[in-house]
Amino acid sequence: MPQGQPDYVPDDGLTTRQRRHRPLVMVHTGPGKGKSTAAFGLATRAWAQGWSIGVFQFVKSAKWRIGEERALRTLAESGEGGTVSWNKMGEGWSWIRHRRATEDHAADAAEGWEQIKRDLAAETHRLYVLDEFTYPMKWGWVDVEDVVATLAQRPGTQHVVITGRDADPRLVDAADLVTEMSKVRHPMDVGQKGQRGIEW
Amino acid sequence: MPQGQPDYVPDDGLTTRQRRHRPLVMVHTGPGKGKSTAAFGLATRAWAQGWSIGVFQFVKSAKWRIGEERALRTLAESGEGGTVSWNKMGEGWSWIRHRRATEDHAADAAEGWEQIKRDLAAETHRLYVLDEFTYPMKWGWVDVEDVVATLAQRPGTQHVVITGRDADPRLVDAADLVTEMSKVRHPMDVGQKGQRGIEW
Repeated sequence: MPQGQPDYVPDDGLTTRQRRHRPLVMVHTGPGKGKSTAAFGLATRAWAQGWSIGVFQFVKSAKWRIGEERALRTLAESGEGGTVSWNKMGEGWSWIRHRRATEDHAADAAEGWEQIKRDLAAETHRLYVLDEFTYPMKWGWVDVEDVVATLAQRPGTQHVVITGRDADPRLVDAADLVTEMSKVRHPMDVGQKGQRGIEW
Repeated sequence: MPQGQPDYVPDDGLTTRQRRHRPLVMVHTGPGKGKSTAAFGLATRAWAQGWSIGVFQFVKSAKWRIGEERALRTLAESGEGGTVSWNKMGEGWSWIRHRRATEDHAADAAEGWEQIKRDLAAETHRLYVLDEFTYPMKWGWVDVEDVVATLAQRPGTQHVVITGRDADPRLVDAADLVTEMSKVRHPMDVGQKGQRGIEW
């Protein structure tokens, strides 16, 4: 946990206050658990600050994150904090009226990224959770250089957290905060499958 | 992310279903960010399952985790999921009627651990978040052997997640799931202090 004392103060012409409120790009990567869980924890904290939150899930899955989704929707509906826009690639992005008959994950991912670009340009949200977004980059569905350039040029104060294994080195270089989650021990190693409430 | 296929199936006489519902001891340790955030993310998921959650915070701090606390309290009050009991060492444990005049952190930590032992024996909660509980163990305020023995003997299905740096090797050995969060890059390194909504 940061103790409030930076290692050094950069000669960047910014005041401490300006630097403090600098919008961040955060990456949670590595083979261990907690990458997405920590990102949704950040979203919870952002809700408490009254922020607008945009969640974009880039891997199709029926049961993963349903707990977080239900919790964030319940929080948003309480009217006491921020708002949440939850978008899933696997179920057809919410802003697209009709689902295509054929499943084209590459096109779906590209469409998701285009919407994020529009939202960033319009300063729609204060926090973006791009869950498992490293994979469409890894698989070549979304151009890493475009992501890095777009993030570098985003206006205003918009925080972005990206989760997933194997984050591209160019993304890691562009990020302000990178956390690597490593697996020290996991019950899967001793023959246990995932369980409800813990894994999803 | 586990893909549902264990490396091997142990010869422990348990069915897959029994093994799946085995109560877990989880440890989030290491110098990186996300240890507590991921633990509170787990709590959010547990809330969605309707579980009783006990949070015990072992490091006194005025502003840390207020976002998570507010979110979990709002979720609990919604009546749509589980319940949350939130206990802070720094403000006097909630089950102790009167605050002592003198601050004795070691005694406070020991009292917190005694309550957790009572709750475990009574099967009060389904998930325990022991936030920053590695520190009282590290500082000798709580006996690691007692923690390991108590966890090993706890009845029923009670999951426990412990966060903090420098987890004792005996605790790591006793845990079912250990995740190490390492810092790859942090804005504190380039002269930025923590900011509201992101750090707390």
